[in-house]
Amino acid sequence: MHPGARNLDDDCAVLKVGEETLVITHDMMVEGIHYLPGQDPADVAWKLVTVNLSDLASKGARPLGVLLGYMFGMDDARFVEGLHEALDHYGASLLGGDTVAGTGTQALGLTAIGKASYVPVPSRGTARSGDALYVTGPLGAAMLGFEALKAGSGDSLAFRRPHARLDEGIALAPHVSAIMDISDGLLLDALRLANASDVTLAIDSAAVPIAAPEDRRDEALRWGDDYELLFTAPAGISLPIPATQIGTAAPRADAPVLLDNQRLTNADELGFRH
Amino acid sequence: MHPGARNLDDDCAVLKVGEETLVITHDMMVEGIHYLPGQDPADVAWKLVTVNLSDLASKGARPLGVLLGYMFGMDDARFVEGLHEALDHYGASLLGGDTVAGTGTQALGLTAIGKASYVPVPSRGTARSGDALYVTGPLGAAMLGFEALKAGSGDSLAFRRPHARLDEGIALAPHVSAIMDISDGLLLDALRLANASDVTLAIDSAAVPIAAPEDRRDEALRWGDDYELLFTAPAGISLPIPATQIGTAAPRADAPVLLDNQRLTNADELGFRH
Repeated sequence: MHPGARNLDDDCAVLKVGEETLVITHDMMVEGIHYLPGQDPADVAWKLVTVNLSDLASKGARPLGVLLGYMFGMDDARFVEGLHEALDHYGASLLGGDTVAGTGTQALGLTAIGKASYVPVPSRGTARSGDALYVTGPLGAAMLGFEALKAGSGDSLAFRRPHARLDEGIALAPHVSAIMDISDGLLLDALRLANASDVTLAIDSAAVPIAAPEDRRDEALRWGDDYELLFTAPAGISLPIPATQIGTAAPRADAPVLLDNQRLTNADELGFRH
Repeated sequence: MHPGARNLDDDCAVLKVGEETLVITHDMMVEGIHYLPGQDPADVAWKLVTVNLSDLASKGARPLGVLLGYMFGMDDARFVEGLHEALDHYGASLLGGDTVAGTGTQALGLTAIGKASYVPVPSRGTARSGDALYVTGPLGAAMLGFEALKAGSGDSLAFRRPHARLDEGIALAPHVSAIMDISDGLLLDALRLANASDVTLAIDSAAVPIAAPEDRRDEALRWGDDYELLFTAPAGISLPIPATQIGTAAPRADAPVLLDNQRLTNADELGFRH
């Protein structure tokens, strides 16, 4: 997008409506980029819902409903099945949407609308120097699940049916200084939080909980799709849910992220885009 | 979609939020179906906004903002230019959205959020037998504009830069018994309104205002993209804006639409899908 257009990928929209505050997000998924051609359409639907509700989770919002933009091109009945499984799971309704004929690569869109549970709605741009940096759970499970799916054997559930941390986001909203979900890998998303907040995040790689063998720690820190929450909070405060401290926020230095005191600057090396 | 899934194309979502009522819609546009490959991206953006805001217009809603789902694949700066022209024109904001890489046919999505100006929000499903049937303006201008664009000469503005009838929708909302926008052709959209309301609409073709030569009247009744409003109201009431009566609603007979007393039943013959 050209200079002057806001970065559409950054954050949810926050909309004040009367006395209420809504949080609204729209994410697309494209065949071959965000899901594998031939993947179970029910899993694709589940992930489309989760990706969007994970954005709401990072804002401490309770989902109200979704609108679907659906391009025909897979087993539609199976897609609808997974869609309703996901919506039932999260307690959200299908409010509306659009269906279109597709001639090429399939593209899907979902808009999720939620109600803020806490105001001001937390942001990724308000971490303060001195804050502690936390993650809500282990990383790397989706990486292993993806490999199992590609291999056709092993447990692929974590990749196919990820969970949006809605309860965790609601519990954390009053306590965090900054928060976002980890969709593209811890290091890449930490860089985004650091840049948005104008701090440097110093991460201790050994402290990061991983759901993968130790020799794959480095990959687990760069793989996305786990949808854990990454957040900062004033050092030493008591948190309402279990979370692991993995680093600290420092005054902004030349690099946005320090991993074990190594400067990380190149976004392309920090996470997967898939 | 399989039985049990609601028809996503039918209508906007109406969402009560505290004391306010929101109207939300999501429409997609696909290259080669909804716009021509090589068409000016600024015009594509304008139309994407208009198509969605026209849905809000039919609900008497004032636009608050939009979320964009954008797949790269055209001159992005030019698209953003047209997007902002349209949003400025209609007084709506770009709230957020998503951008994705595209490898095949380009697909775009837009979610528009509006605030209902009148409650209950009017619907297409509540026309009553005995009502008069109206249209807000002439049909066929987009057809001629499309032909001019394809030919590379003549005035294509009506096709490239259609207008959502927001003011008209807001003025009409308290007075209509049923209303929708004409996006796919008068006859096809009349059939939808008739089916949703369980009435038969008797249309007098000669009464329909057209913006095309008389020998193309039949085509003008089947061509879409003009975005005029089609509505019913109790016979004889005074309307707040100029509109032309083109027929009446009768008790449901075997055909949903009678055109000059001819039964029209086959949706495929009634309008263009493009």
